[in-house]
Amino acid sequence: MSLNLTILGCHSATPRINAFPTSQYLEINNRHFLIDCGEGTQRQMRKYNVGFSKIDHIFISHLHGDHFYGLVGLLATYGILSREKELHIYGPKDIKKVTLLQLKISQSHAQYPIIFHELTSNESELIFEDDKVSVRTIPLNHRVYTNGYLFTEKEKPRKLNMLNISGYPEIDKADYLNIKAGKDVVLSTGEIVANKELTIAPKKPLSFAFCSDTCYKPNILKIIENVDLLYHEATFLADREDLAKKTKHSTSKQAAQIAKDASVKQLILGHYSGRYKDISLFKTEAKEIFENTELAQPGKVFSIH
Amino acid sequence: MSLNLTILGCHSATPRINAFPTSQYLEINNRHFLIDCGEGTQRQMRKYNVGFSKIDHIFISHLHGDHFYGLVGLLATYGILSREKELHIYGPKDIKKVTLLQLKISQSHAQYPIIFHELTSNESELIFEDDKVSVRTIPLNHRVYTNGYLFTEKEKPRKLNMLNISGYPEIDKADYLNIKAGKDVVLSTGEIVANKELTIAPKKPLSFAFCSDTCYKPNILKIIENVDLLYHEATFLADREDLAKKTKHSTSKQAAQIAKDASVKQLILGHYSGRYKDISLFKTEAKEIFENTELAQPGKVFSIH
Repeated sequence: MSLNLTILGCHSATPRINAFPTSQYLEINNRHFLIDCGEGTQRQMRKYNVGFSKIDHIFISHLHGDHFYGLVGLLATYGILSREKELHIYGPKDIKKVTLLQLKISQSHAQYPIIFHELTSNESELIFEDDKVSVRTIPLNHRVYTNGYLFTEKEKPRKLNMLNISGYPEIDKADYLNIKAGKDVVLSTGEIVANKELTIAPKKPLSFAFCSDTCYKPNILKIIENVDLLYHEATFLADREDLAKKTKHSTSKQAAQIAKDASVKQLILGHYSGRYKDISLFKTEAKEIFENTELAQPGKVFSIH
Repeated sequence: MSLNLTILGCHSATPRINAFPTSQYLEINNRHFLIDCGEGTQRQMRKYNVGFSKIDHIFISHLHGDHFYGLVGLLATYGILSREKELHIYGPKDIKKVTLLQLKISQSHAQYPIIFHELTSNESELIFEDDKVSVRTIPLNHRVYTNGYLFTEKEKPRKLNMLNISGYPEIDKADYLNIKAGKDVVLSTGEIVANKELTIAPKKPLSFAFCSDTCYKPNILKIIENVDLLYHEATFLADREDLAKKTKHSTSKQAAQIAKDASVKQLILGHYSGRYKDISLFKTEAKEIFENTELAQPGKVFSIH
């Protein structure tokens, strides 16, 4: 079980020389996801050695340009690269219409199947699940319909505790399947051996929550509680809480408050407004509330093993 | 009169770390034009100090993604920058539909007027003209409907040759307007003084022709004849003339042949395929046919004064 998050872009919309709009590449439990896809994402993927072909699922938070204008270019590139396998795209209603029109008009040779999963619910919903990972939406509150995403590793089954099992000669290999499935063992004496004694708990599944863009929204706490890693937007410093409120963005302190109240392990800030020259202030401010805070930067990788 | 061409991007579609799709910024006779707008163009504009607000006219050659996927991001940025003045966009049919849908769906606050000039003709046509510059289309031959663009300075009126005029005391200030307008002067003796003797020819207007993407198309020669600067795509080296023909692109030698046959002053090559690691080969090959050849590179400026 492992989690590697690569920041591809982490700035807000206004173009600057060394600023890139939102995009992140997440490897979790051997699954590979792209989250948001601002203009220039495919170039950032090349720069930071993200394998294009690994990605089968792209999650778009909302349809502001700085979060999805790079999507069509990436899809067209997959056409150039002769991709054949399915690509799944999750995002708000209309993402299909606008993307397919762009591909059609640019006569892109996207021969591979693109499967759109258009989201409309305002409740958290399970949108992806396989044997390794599940993904749920985190309904956010921004100027347009927006979802964050919670990525969680699937819990592995308990392992046999062979040392303890060997203490009960009566327990046979034929019992292992039941023990793995969580059952207690009843010995011939009638004694019950608790499953806990015969098995070892698996490692705790890792989880990552992506929350951007959004105003301060405490009712996401129940969804993101105890995650290992939380990315939460912090467009403004606390001095411009008024502007954050008006534009439905968050301040660094608000992001830190969410991290603290949700008891997450680590917080990553990003989506910095272009008005701030020194982004280290975001970290300084957030740390007053939540110590384990880091700043997103293009190319930065956050790893948990 | 002056001409400065800044290369913002000059590579073909496949994304590479230091490759940028086609876009050029042209200053000609104090007019400022953007030509093509591949993904990431606005970032390249920032990098090479192109003033966003100077541009009122954007010319798109064709609707392949590597020539226009950056347009919507730039238009959205103009919204963020509170642009108010008109922006004119010239390009193939459907550019309006796809651009407006993207802006609408991303709820971009583009409050300024965007005026689309959709092109459909297969003949060269005058599409822009003011007192400084005119712009004509150069119909090209690519896999989709494509135009190059010819930018030409307006010829200035002839100047009075005061030295020669002073040799004719009979010529009065009242005659100057007629002389400037090109008329000869008839003296009281009946002698005719030719206008040429009384005026000085203005500097020859400068001109730039942008030709991308296209296969080898000699019938553009009559349109681009004698231009000062020709940008002509060269996607392949001569070894892949077969592939150039198949994909309706040109080789470096074909571009050079066009430059030679049109008697242009300087040729710039670009749109290099990602298959070539050493782009200097494009120049070497072209120079066998046309000596004054240069390579487009991001950030390179070509100036004529």
